[in-house]
Amino acid sequence: MSDVTETPLLDTVHIPADLRKLAPTQLRQLADELRAETISAVGVTGGHLGSGLGVVELTVAIHYVFDTPNDKLVWDVGHQCYPHKILTGRRDRIRTLRTGGGLSGFTKRSESEYDPFGAAHSSTSISASLGFAIANKLAGTPGKGIAVIGDGAMSAGMAYEAMNNAEAAGNRLIVILNDNDMSIAPPVGGLSAYLARMVSSSEYMGFRSLAKKVVSKLSKRVHSAAAKAEEFARGMATGGTLFEELGFYYVGPIDGHNLEHLIPVLENVRDAKEGPVLIHVVTKKGKGYAPAEAAADKYHGVQKFDVITGTQAKAPPGPPQYQNVFGAQLVKEAARDERIVAITAAMPSGTGLDAFAKNYPDRFFDVGIAEQHAVTFAAGLAAQGMRPFCAIYSTFLQRAYDQVVHDVAIQNLPVRFAIDRAGLVGADGATHAGSFDVTYLATLPNFVVMAAADEAELVHMTHTAACHDSGPIALRYPRGNGTGIDLPATPERLEIGKGRIVREGKKVAILSLGTRLGEALKAADALDAKGLSTTVADLRFAKPLDEALIRRLLTTHEVAVTIEEGSVGGLGAHVLTLASDEGLTDGGLKIRTMRLPDTFQDQDKPELQYAQAGLDADGIVETVLKALRHNDAGVAEGARA
Amino acid sequence: MSDVTETPLLDTVHIPADLRKLAPTQLRQLADELRAETISAVGVTGGHLGSGLGVVELTVAIHYVFDTPNDKLVWDVGHQCYPHKILTGRRDRIRTLRTGGGLSGFTKRSESEYDPFGAAHSSTSISASLGFAIANKLAGTPGKGIAVIGDGAMSAGMAYEAMNNAEAAGNRLIVILNDNDMSIAPPVGGLSAYLARMVSSSEYMGFRSLAKKVVSKLSKRVHSAAAKAEEFARGMATGGTLFEELGFYYVGPIDGHNLEHLIPVLENVRDAKEGPVLIHVVTKKGKGYAPAEAAADKYHGVQKFDVITGTQAKAPPGPPQYQNVFGAQLVKEAARDERIVAITAAMPSGTGLDAFAKNYPDRFFDVGIAEQHAVTFAAGLAAQGMRPFCAIYSTFLQRAYDQVVHDVAIQNLPVRFAIDRAGLVGADGATHAGSFDVTYLATLPNFVVMAAADEAELVHMTHTAACHDSGPIALRYPRGNGTGIDLPATPERLEIGKGRIVREGKKVAILSLGTRLGEALKAADALDAKGLSTTVADLRFAKPLDEALIRRLLTTHEVAVTIEEGSVGGLGAHVLTLASDEGLTDGGLKIRTMRLPDTFQDQDKPELQYAQAGLDADGIVETVLKALRHNDAGVAEGARA
Repeated sequence: MSDVTETPLLDTVHIPADLRKLAPTQLRQLADELRAETISAVGVTGGHLGSGLGVVELTVAIHYVFDTPNDKLVWDVGHQCYPHKILTGRRDRIRTLRTGGGLSGFTKRSESEYDPFGAAHSSTSISASLGFAIANKLAGTPGKGIAVIGDGAMSAGMAYEAMNNAEAAGNRLIVILNDNDMSIAPPVGGLSAYLARMVSSSEYMGFRSLAKKVVSKLSKRVHSAAAKAEEFARGMATGGTLFEELGFYYVGPIDGHNLEHLIPVLENVRDAKEGPVLIHVVTKKGKGYAPAEAAADKYHGVQKFDVITGTQAKAPPGPPQYQNVFGAQLVKEAARDERIVAITAAMPSGTGLDAFAKNYPDRFFDVGIAEQHAVTFAAGLAAQGMRPFCAIYSTFLQRAYDQVVHDVAIQNLPVRFAIDRAGLVGADGATHAGSFDVTYLATLPNFVVMAAADEAELVHMTHTAACHDSGPIALRYPRGNGTGIDLPATPERLEIGKGRIVREGKKVAILSLGTRLGEALKAADALDAKGLSTTVADLRFAKPLDEALIRRLLTTHEVAVTIEEGSVGGLGAHVLTLASDEGLTDGGLKIRTMRLPDTFQDQDKPELQYAQAGLDADGIVETVLKALRHNDAGVAEGARA
Repeated sequence: MSDVTETPLLDTVHIPADLRKLAPTQLRQLADELRAETISAVGVTGGHLGSGLGVVELTVAIHYVFDTPNDKLVWDVGHQCYPHKILTGRRDRIRTLRTGGGLSGFTKRSESEYDPFGAAHSSTSISASLGFAIANKLAGTPGKGIAVIGDGAMSAGMAYEAMNNAEAAGNRLIVILNDNDMSIAPPVGGLSAYLARMVSSSEYMGFRSLAKKVVSKLSKRVHSAAAKAEEFARGMATGGTLFEELGFYYVGPIDGHNLEHLIPVLENVRDAKEGPVLIHVVTKKGKGYAPAEAAADKYHGVQKFDVITGTQAKAPPGPPQYQNVFGAQLVKEAARDERIVAITAAMPSGTGLDAFAKNYPDRFFDVGIAEQHAVTFAAGLAAQGMRPFCAIYSTFLQRAYDQVVHDVAIQNLPVRFAIDRAGLVGADGATHAGSFDVTYLATLPNFVVMAAADEAELVHMTHTAACHDSGPIALRYPRGNGTGIDLPATPERLEIGKGRIVREGKKVAILSLGTRLGEALKAADALDAKGLSTTVADLRFAKPLDEALIRRLLTTHEVAVTIEEGSVGGLGAHVLTLASDEGLTDGGLKIRTMRLPDTFQDQDKPELQYAQAGLDADGIVETVLKALRHNDAGVAEGARA
């Protein structure tokens, strides 16, 4: 653990302006105290630790050198921002991280003027910083855009698109590449190998020579026409780094834990006449906390833990996580069928594909943070007869929507989408919620969209997807643990577009999609107890709809309620569309659709988030009773007997 | 023009196998004939010409050297594929290009086994080819993946993501970079500048030395451990090209019109033991046809034209195009408000922003084919107080969906989305249809979604968006010409979420969103003539809905019909959701939603596409009458008097 237990210097720093009053020689101590405070806080809250520990010195150095918040500092992804939050007026709330009503686990505009741009998804920081830089340039106001981006995030296409456009910002844009050779999983791909070669082939310079070199590179040459010409030639075919070839001045690699290097380099870059500049900083994820440094994942995301020992609180024993049920079933499918391949975008463990990777390394593809490529690569594999599973969280699949439409749906290729983290996700908040996938997928021709009601259903749906060769198919399931239901010994191949009746009643019909099924059944018991005999159906498919089942339920019950873990435009909308297409509403139809509210919900415990959304048993009962009362009030006559 | 009028050699080539029987010395003549035939065909049909002319020799060379269709050839974007279609069994239909029932203007799997992967959106080819290569590698079957991608398409993030993952394919993946320094508009950004430097700094080698160099690079070194080690070091910080740094073997630049260079290089690459290989080919868009070479856009997309003179058929005089109405209004807004900036992703002319660019070059940003960056860059600009308009076609905005959600909607930033090509688009077919934007945007909290019913409305909506600072706002409008309505002298700032009654009636209500309004009015006349007094409302907003107006229309008319140029989950679904939320269906509600069908519609004239979709006046009348008959049949009682 960190040896620091008192934080006398940090106690004097409430905002970066306080920090800037310190002497350079005090910064080492401040960084040590900041690291200790970060460890202590995350010990209490759990959350992202390794990334923050890796940028403690960088955080201190940036706020020391730059004029935040006038210079706009954008942390890519944002899970490394806890030290930044401590230094920017939020230390008093740092032990509320990721809890309901507390600080977000990411940067967030509404939280602080020091968070000029919120994040959580990766690789947005250069584009946003470029926006800040250009806005200030146009307005003639001071202020730079500073993006801090990891090497993993740099593998995403949008980072490249932004770099390709950076030159217009001149010296107002600074990109700090935080190269820790580790995002969430070990990095993959050509860029990663390239960075490793750059670091291994370079010697770290002493700070005097380093600072001198930076100065000569970025400032002096403006005085010399010959140097200008030479400058123009930077990045010739035989020349510069990849970054120089895209129009940056490249500085580095630099030891990102050495403040005596960081400060003068940042000062020189700050004062440079030329730009944009990319500073290549090498850090260690988990730096300065032995248990984190020793862990394979560098304590990327942790439970609450004991600061002395690093021992994390164990999650209470419970049913298996959905992701692992999926992963285990896919291994079985792969054993049966060698055409099955699996693709993840930098989430081998989060998607449960680590088991697959271990068993079938040749058929497993971690493409890095590259969802667009993941989907079209899968489409290519499918076009050549493979059976690809593309396992991507709901919120991240948004990054590949055009590829889903253009490369998969239009061509009707049998790519299987395993969509984890569907619905609300708890501590990660609005940016990670999987709210929109049913809406944005079920609107596409050719698509089959399933949602698992529990982990047994997930087994069936994984098998069903594996067998489904006639077009694209998606299965969605939530973050977290299953319900504890027994897993089937033999997976069933579900009939496409057929739901199931889970509980038969007479007056009320609840049409459920996904894991609200448990709440629907609770609600049914409560309604039954009130004399309202209730049917519960698990529709299984948002597309194609089980039209016969829905038609029957709507026309034989007094009131029908749909419920789903998604936004407007999804299951409920499709059921209503079917009903109006068929004229079922013409003579009176009491139907309500329960869905996520039209707001972005902040982090909280998932059950509280769902309660807030009204998507629990109480909410269902209330919706049903209100609908029945609405009838009693006699808005219009035409109810069935 | 091309001097060739007879095509004796081409007449003998029906499929690539015929081509491979020719002697290398005959290929020049074949290429000339193929170019002449391409020009002749596009003279008849109109369509994409410049891109195809630029790759005539490349098309011949690839099919001559590689074993298509077993080797999978993927043309990026696909608008350069007409010569390919002529050589692959489709010459007899080449004069049906882009017409209803005819050949697609892009590659298309259902058309030919020589089109292994369809395209139309850019930058997918490397990912798809990698899929083919890996599938064959896993299956142990022969066959390479060959991607031909332009320099413009190479600026998109997904191309970079794919390159970053290419190494696993080894020598089964070949990327041919078709560097014509011109995609649709002149290219922008760092990569483009880099390629220009590479080309200008290189000398074209004679073919013997070139072929020899390629052989030594790709084959010999496998025999030498020392060479292997040297190979490993390719792309060191001080070393290779950008492509080598990402893991490719780089060959080039090569003159892409010189078959004596192309053939041996491709043969060597085909037989290479190492890979993946990127071949940098330099071509001229419009090559070999003087009018195209002389034109600024190199005849990227043309009307039918006279082959001798190159004179294109003039479009009949008509109302202004929507894109230009938008562009002209934005110029006026910019004159009034210096915070207004405009962003396009490589479509300065197609979006109508060329006028803006001319007037306000400093406030205009063409970011290249980089929709993801465009949106987040706009978000950064908005966060710093600018008023950005992001003008992107509906179908291409899909590429930035996550950025729309994560960077704009969640942060509630006032980015203005000018969504051109909404609805069906005619000759470009399913890949370019703007079918999904209302569904995928209106499901997002914070968003305002408008659709213009005519070009006067577009003026109002452009102004409204310019003034709307409280969050994101989108305005959608179709491809093509307006209705001819007078443009307003002074634009009106529309009240957010308020529709308008265009025509007042009593029995039938038509709730229209977008440019189906004209058909709705025609339908209303027809219904009136049948004694069915009809109201027509232009809702203007898909989000927020004009709840009061909709409530009134639904409850005071016998039947209500919504109509929109979009897929299920959009306006109709939102209206139905409102109706069921409020219990309006409880006592009987005769409502139908008209929307695009659940299929991807092939190219045809737009009016025929809409007729096929049932979204015209006849379709509306039929829907209304059917709904009324449904009532008469007495499915359930409860209709209003």
